[in-house]
Amino acid sequence: MSHRYAVIMAGGKGERFWPQSRLARPKQLLPIVGETPMLAQTVERLRGLVTPEQVIVITNREQRAAAVAACPMLPPENIVAEPVGRDTAAAVGLAALLVARRDPTATLAMLPADQVIHDTKAFREVLHAAYDAAEAEPWLVTIGIHPSEPATGYGYIQRGQMIARAQGRDVFEVKRFVEKPHLEKAREYLASGDYLWNAGMFVWSVATIRAALAKHVPLLAGGLETIEQAIAGGRSIDDALAEHFPTLQKISVDYAVMEKADNVVTLAGTFDWDDVGAWPAVMRHLPADEAGNVLRGEALVETGAGNLVVSTDKHLVALMGVDDLIVVHTPDATLVCPKSHAQQVKLLLKRLEAKPEWKRLL
Amino acid sequence: MSHRYAVIMAGGKGERFWPQSRLARPKQLLPIVGETPMLAQTVERLRGLVTPEQVIVITNREQRAAAVAACPMLPPENIVAEPVGRDTAAAVGLAALLVARRDPTATLAMLPADQVIHDTKAFREVLHAAYDAAEAEPWLVTIGIHPSEPATGYGYIQRGQMIARAQGRDVFEVKRFVEKPHLEKAREYLASGDYLWNAGMFVWSVATIRAALAKHVPLLAGGLETIEQAIAGGRSIDDALAEHFPTLQKISVDYAVMEKADNVVTLAGTFDWDDVGAWPAVMRHLPADEAGNVLRGEALVETGAGNLVVSTDKHLVALMGVDDLIVVHTPDATLVCPKSHAQQVKLLLKRLEAKPEWKRLL
Repeated sequence: MSHRYAVIMAGGKGERFWPQSRLARPKQLLPIVGETPMLAQTVERLRGLVTPEQVIVITNREQRAAAVAACPMLPPENIVAEPVGRDTAAAVGLAALLVARRDPTATLAMLPADQVIHDTKAFREVLHAAYDAAEAEPWLVTIGIHPSEPATGYGYIQRGQMIARAQGRDVFEVKRFVEKPHLEKAREYLASGDYLWNAGMFVWSVATIRAALAKHVPLLAGGLETIEQAIAGGRSIDDALAEHFPTLQKISVDYAVMEKADNVVTLAGTFDWDDVGAWPAVMRHLPADEAGNVLRGEALVETGAGNLVVSTDKHLVALMGVDDLIVVHTPDATLVCPKSHAQQVKLLLKRLEAKPEWKRLL
Repeated sequence: MSHRYAVIMAGGKGERFWPQSRLARPKQLLPIVGETPMLAQTVERLRGLVTPEQVIVITNREQRAAAVAACPMLPPENIVAEPVGRDTAAAVGLAALLVARRDPTATLAMLPADQVIHDTKAFREVLHAAYDAAEAEPWLVTIGIHPSEPATGYGYIQRGQMIARAQGRDVFEVKRFVEKPHLEKAREYLASGDYLWNAGMFVWSVATIRAALAKHVPLLAGGLETIEQAIAGGRSIDDALAEHFPTLQKISVDYAVMEKADNVVTLAGTFDWDDVGAWPAVMRHLPADEAGNVLRGEALVETGAGNLVVSTDKHLVALMGVDDLIVVHTPDATLVCPKSHAQQVKLLLKRLEAKPEWKRLL
């Protein structure tokens, strides 16, 4: 049996896909792109690399049942719920803990649940190489994405010297992680050729990530050890997490570890990649009509309207004389906004939160 | 008992209010403005002028049941359905026939079912004067509306000499009826002060309108006489109409009679009047928020959006970053279009007609 595991991070709220996404049914549990939930597609993408027993999903309590339903190919006990969100460093520590209980010599990949990657073959090859690298050296391996545009919505990784090869691929030192840049900076990064998008995909051995946590966030590492001892002492994972997880330090893995560690390396992802951040991104993956409209469900667009994203079901949405608009119909709520405002759906959700009779729509 | 009747024409399809209006539930059967169906408001507006027994509604078969339900204050037998639409001249002839059966010496007002008139008092005074005029002389009396803007969506009435007074109001000869003008002409009409909007409101005696029909459209008058004789011979109104109404000449009363007759007079309607032709017109009658949005039902408009018309129910419609838009949600269909396109909803309906699975939405 292989010593390779994959841990899928599936705790996102997916607010930007409201009203199709809801608190209990976020983006990763919906077929935003494709026919199955994005989480299921992420699991499927790992086939051939790891067995279903070696895939763990970390989600939250609200979404656990839906995650189990979305992943019938996984043992239900591999779907673990955080009792509360404590940011990504705690989740990384929990992942290492869960894998270590099964195999302390293992290597694990950490993968977001809600990305679209069509070129599965290249993805598997790169991940295979990343496992190799993480097994060969005590490295924190991150898979970066070649930027296709000066995106301001992602963090970037500046690569340094090529220091190794894995499966015929170059492994680079990482000079630094940089936060989401302004457009001008993003253009510089793109032009330099030395920057990759930080896609939140990491591979490391249990020993390496635990050493990094202990070194850079010792308080967090201590809290995780308390949880591990509680489980070793006979408590269920749920009970141990319920008691101790909420006390863990809340910090991102980028800030806590990746930006500080000196053993971070990167492999370039040679596959297509899209984190499908909001409704307009959906258009990149679905067929459009001649007017550039992406329509799902019973949508009727009268000639003259174009560049629309319409998602509905058996309910007819009829549009006329409008452009660049997003219309998402669900049984109890409909969103209408220009594509340019798609990132701001959170503003609407704040309004829903403020009104008792609208909370059911969150 | 008074010799005055009112016949309400309630056969319109109200296509421009789709999806709230449907073939079987058009504008006049909906509370487009106000809390009750517009037909019920029209009946209510007649209170004090005529008794419920003297109000007749002419509708069509598809809408008859809904019209009866909308008018619980009327005897159900006063709601008469045309088996097919044969334009307004045939409807006028049918109205005269129905009234004549009850009182051949009567005067009748013909009124559209779907107009908004807030100043009920002035409406009743003008109608009272029009009945007086139609009883005093063999006139075809039309009530014109003082134009408030150079509208291109209405026909106009050019008035001539003042030839009488009724209830203290001037009665004018009519020089001519003119069809919907272009904007330039409409501006001339408005500036001249001699033109009124043709609101489709007429008052005449049974004898006068029958004489006019016999003179100007003798074929139609003959067909109507056949119907009358069938009913006199013992057939039900429905049976007689089913057999003979479809054979009647199809022509508008304006073209068949009003534009040709030399005994047409007009009184100026001194009340507010709106035929509420399409969704944007609704805004004139409903309260708007600070951003000029008229919202009905569960609508959520994020700051920055303005000048919207939103109609929904318990289903939340959330809008952000859009202006001048109409969004109408119903349980099985939603319309999204700019106000500037509101008159073109018929284009969508043609598309619905063309697709079998969408016909249910007409």
